[in-house]
Amino acid sequence: MAVIDGKWCRMESEEMPYSDLSFGIKMEKLLHKEISKYQEIIVFKSQLFGNVLVLDGIVQVAELDEFVYHEMMANLPLNCHPDAKRVLIVGGGDGGVAREILKHPSVEKVVVCEIDEKVVDVCKKYFPKLAESFSDVRTELVIGDGIEYMKDQSSAFDVIITDPQDKIGIAEGLHNEGYYNSMKRALKPNGLICSEGKDMYFELSFVKRLMTFSRKLFPKVAYGYAVTPSYAPGHIGFLLCSTNPNTSFKEPLKTLTENEMKERKLKYYSSDIHRACFILPNHIKEDLYPDGNLQQ
Amino acid sequence: MAVIDGKWCRMESEEMPYSDLSFGIKMEKLLHKEISKYQEIIVFKSQLFGNVLVLDGIVQVAELDEFVYHEMMANLPLNCHPDAKRVLIVGGGDGGVAREILKHPSVEKVVVCEIDEKVVDVCKKYFPKLAESFSDVRTELVIGDGIEYMKDQSSAFDVIITDPQDKIGIAEGLHNEGYYNSMKRALKPNGLICSEGKDMYFELSFVKRLMTFSRKLFPKVAYGYAVTPSYAPGHIGFLLCSTNPNTSFKEPLKTLTENEMKERKLKYYSSDIHRACFILPNHIKEDLYPDGNLQQ
Repeated sequence: MAVIDGKWCRMESEEMPYSDLSFGIKMEKLLHKEISKYQEIIVFKSQLFGNVLVLDGIVQVAELDEFVYHEMMANLPLNCHPDAKRVLIVGGGDGGVAREILKHPSVEKVVVCEIDEKVVDVCKKYFPKLAESFSDVRTELVIGDGIEYMKDQSSAFDVIITDPQDKIGIAEGLHNEGYYNSMKRALKPNGLICSEGKDMYFELSFVKRLMTFSRKLFPKVAYGYAVTPSYAPGHIGFLLCSTNPNTSFKEPLKTLTENEMKERKLKYYSSDIHRACFILPNHIKEDLYPDGNLQQ
Repeated sequence: MAVIDGKWCRMESEEMPYSDLSFGIKMEKLLHKEISKYQEIIVFKSQLFGNVLVLDGIVQVAELDEFVYHEMMANLPLNCHPDAKRVLIVGGGDGGVAREILKHPSVEKVVVCEIDEKVVDVCKKYFPKLAESFSDVRTELVIGDGIEYMKDQSSAFDVIITDPQDKIGIAEGLHNEGYYNSMKRALKPNGLICSEGKDMYFELSFVKRLMTFSRKLFPKVAYGYAVTPSYAPGHIGFLLCSTNPNTSFKEPLKTLTENEMKERKLKYYSSDIHRACFILPNHIKEDLYPDGNLQQ
């Protein structure tokens, strides 16, 4: 849970590794605080980060750098797919990933399946630039459990993006082999998935577990990362899997021109950043790719 | 200053942007606390980060990831220089950068000029793996003011590395044109420098200022970064300048084989990471390289 302490909002989770970290941001104003059916929801305004959304004591969205995570979650998979028309986002109730998905001309339909309606309501109010994606005619918002929703889908989506609440306890069902199996079934031929992949320092063993079972299900699996000052370790990972053995995550199928980047208002993502995000520090690479880079 | 609050050590600086951030690490044990002539020095033991050195409320060294910063500060410049024999480190009283410099076979002499003897003493005691570099016969430790030391040098070093205390107030003299001019004079022909370059989100305008005056003095200037969970924004920058117009920072002159990386026990740095560290997010690139990439 977050601790409001005078001018500070301190993110202090009970969950390892975050139980050993306290990440405080000075508030200008507390804007919202409630306990929904699923979690504690806090929004505050700050000088350094702009408006900040905190769920169960972990920063989820900060205006300062929300574009980093959202651009990468959308552009990494979509630029590795030849022609993504139907995209499913599980979680993502803030609308940020959907916003970036909708910038891709091939996309005809985006389904956002968010379990907590309160997150959507709060984001519409305090993060209108993210939640604007919900008013696009191509977007369908489903309030429900992504795990159950996934079980009913078969060959329905070109790309599935899992953008869970960070706290593993609540989102546990989105990080296991059963769920990845459901995603695989829900994909059209040559489909691919992108999941929030945790950080590579404190949660390396968790990432390793994700990659181990993903490799049993998908012929191509890769881990990349991006720099995000508003998340406590300062970076966030992305796990990508493809049912198409010819997919190369390291080399995007679609590269963007300077003009396309400007039109799509991309502040973080570029084709060079795409390639660079998969270049991992030595010690991480050895751990995550024990047999070399064959599967990327 | 750091705030010791029960089991937490909270890094709370009075200096913007850190005055709006509180980065707390759960302590297992407070190992050392003193006010030296120059700064507040704290060392504590933690489960997540190992031993941590905090100067004036800003984390300087954590065992978890100290190698990231130290490997990059040493390897970025040394692998862009054809044959660095004499290296000067200003600051760096923990010995970490010197340790990485000494792994390069061309190096004959390393001078470490640290203003605060207490930092060296504390690091010898609590960070022996870093401070071991001081017992190498090639290392000369000078306790003194780096700015004054630099004024007396002329064509004396192939590479100069500035590894200051983070707090800008104390290390202010290491971030201005006069000091960069002294460094230029202290370099041998075709020499180059590497300075700690702040983060690229909160301190972008500061980085921009550094690059603007550096470009007046050096024909080649570049900014790269590395992921460092123990520094509050989660990454740290490096500013590189060369007096040799043929230097290409983006493409190292010396690439390392797998064997060389193993022999030198490099956990973060590789030739691929070297190249990738200069690939900046779109919005940062536009700000730092307004005329394109001509000068890198």
